[in-house]
Amino acid sequence: MEFTGLHSIFPQGKQPSLFDSPAEWYLKARQSVRKFTVCQLGLSIFSSEKSNKYVAHSYNFFLFPTTFGLMDSEFSFQASSIKFLTHYGFEYSKFLKDGIPYMNEEQKKTLQQHLLTGSWSIRSALDKDRLKVVIEEVTRWVPSAEEGDFMVLHDIKGFQIFDVQLILRQALLDIWTIPTGDQEVTVKKVNPRHRWQLENTSFDLCRKEHVLLSAQGFTNLFQTLVKAKKPLVGHNMMMDLLHLHDKFYKPLPESYEEFKRNIQSLFPILIDTKNVTKAIWKVNNKNLLWKMKCLLYTLWMSPTWP
Amino acid sequence: MEFTGLHSIFPQGKQPSLFDSPAEWYLKARQSVRKFTVCQLGLSIFSSEKSNKYVAHSYNFFLFPTTFGLMDSEFSFQASSIKFLTHYGFEYSKFLKDGIPYMNEEQKKTLQQHLLTGSWSIRSALDKDRLKVVIEEVTRWVPSAEEGDFMVLHDIKGFQIFDVQLILRQALLDIWTIPTGDQEVTVKKVNPRHRWQLENTSFDLCRKEHVLLSAQGFTNLFQTLVKAKKPLVGHNMMMDLLHLHDKFYKPLPESYEEFKRNIQSLFPILIDTKNVTKAIWKVNNKNLLWKMKCLLYTLWMSPTWP
Repeated sequence: MEFTGLHSIFPQGKQPSLFDSPAEWYLKARQSVRKFTVCQLGLSIFSSEKSNKYVAHSYNFFLFPTTFGLMDSEFSFQASSIKFLTHYGFEYSKFLKDGIPYMNEEQKKTLQQHLLTGSWSIRSALDKDRLKVVIEEVTRWVPSAEEGDFMVLHDIKGFQIFDVQLILRQALLDIWTIPTGDQEVTVKKVNPRHRWQLENTSFDLCRKEHVLLSAQGFTNLFQTLVKAKKPLVGHNMMMDLLHLHDKFYKPLPESYEEFKRNIQSLFPILIDTKNVTKAIWKVNNKNLLWKMKCLLYTLWMSPTWP
Repeated sequence: MEFTGLHSIFPQGKQPSLFDSPAEWYLKARQSVRKFTVCQLGLSIFSSEKSNKYVAHSYNFFLFPTTFGLMDSEFSFQASSIKFLTHYGFEYSKFLKDGIPYMNEEQKKTLQQHLLTGSWSIRSALDKDRLKVVIEEVTRWVPSAEEGDFMVLHDIKGFQIFDVQLILRQALLDIWTIPTGDQEVTVKKVNPRHRWQLENTSFDLCRKEHVLLSAQGFTNLFQTLVKAKKPLVGHNMMMDLLHLHDKFYKPLPESYEEFKRNIQSLFPILIDTKNVTKAIWKVNNKNLLWKMKCLLYTLWMSPTWP
């Protein structure tokens, strides 16, 4: 996983240190994880074909927090992390323009409540401007239209597909909306009884379940991984686990014990190849010089190195 | 100016409101200004040619906070602001990869102190890795080199030009460094007396004054504007003034009165075309319908509009 920042700038003496207990380290890291976000996640899925033969499918996901309805979010960028990502050719537009949305369970609950009230509203000024134009267009058309007539709205992007339909249906009880084609919504004049029937079919692409599924985006894949109970393998993956919990499951709890319990129930089998390598060194400790070099390298990479 | 976010997400009831007094509004806006940063600044410089004839030169600056030595910074991004910038075709790589550095007077003071101690150190792990390789290369070469011999270091990017020279000169008293060509530093073996002479010439491109000038980047232009005492013209420019103060002058003070005094001494003549237009409406108040429409538009655009 790549993050927009690793360890936040702490006041002198409060920085993460090699002498922290795991619980102390967790509390410091938690502060950083809540500020920064995941911009990229790589996943290789291994399936066994024959005995001793595995096939790996590798995927690269660019992620961007869901902005939809009243949902907006703020995340921090650390200047030095940007320099790092830039050095390795990170493609910012894939993250900031085309990133896949995601949300955790707390955000999902808020969105659910918002959908249930039946009064949909939006925060973004840009979306408000677009919606204003659409509402004007439809309210001018409706009075002169006959039952069965329809009109097509163009250039409706991303989550605006839901915004436009939710707001129009809320305001006008004698219309029906259907997404048709790319960035297109068809508005049809119907009688209220027919409208009620349409609203209660499972084919409606604007039903609460469908809206939630879209807004959850990458979180759907995370939940599939959790349900499958597959072993999770990573290298130096502690920060990754904190972000997985915070971004796709629940905001990180204050208690380190609770975090451990949650992660263990989400992913019962965790293998960190950094720890595996360390364990091998411990067993095979003849090559002392090599070990010293690795220790020096660890110190050199540590944030407390002068 | 374009920002990475406008108004931060405040707890219910603490959001900026149309009923805030100027001082209340300032305190709320200050919190947002300290979190977000300026990613783009447009400047048109008008000079009078003949009577009634002006020539305008327009510039577009992409800005990115200086990361150099121990300097690093964190800034927030608001997801909805990114959607806005993306919609209008904002080029993220010009901001995040090639942005011009800047710093305010407080950051300059810290950097100055850091340069004076004579023990230069760096925070970024990426720069540390590069430097480690360079130090190894030079320390292997020095013992076998004769006075007058030289070697060339390649692929030294951005502020690494200073990092590399400051660290090498600190560690080895019988060498001299000169930036030669693009991303290149030449290391020359010299005797300590000659070294002392070189260090005290005004031609040295690694002198404290020169390092500071480079690290200040865009702030140099800001200071030129301040010295010139030119009238500053903008549209709806209050947030711009707050960012100018915070990013290029000093962190925003808690007191609104102090902020006003500072801005007035930096830019004695300020013209906000939004206020000019409002004043014209007040004088010419015959067209009441037009005024109502504008008022509604203002409400619609305001963050407290439902």
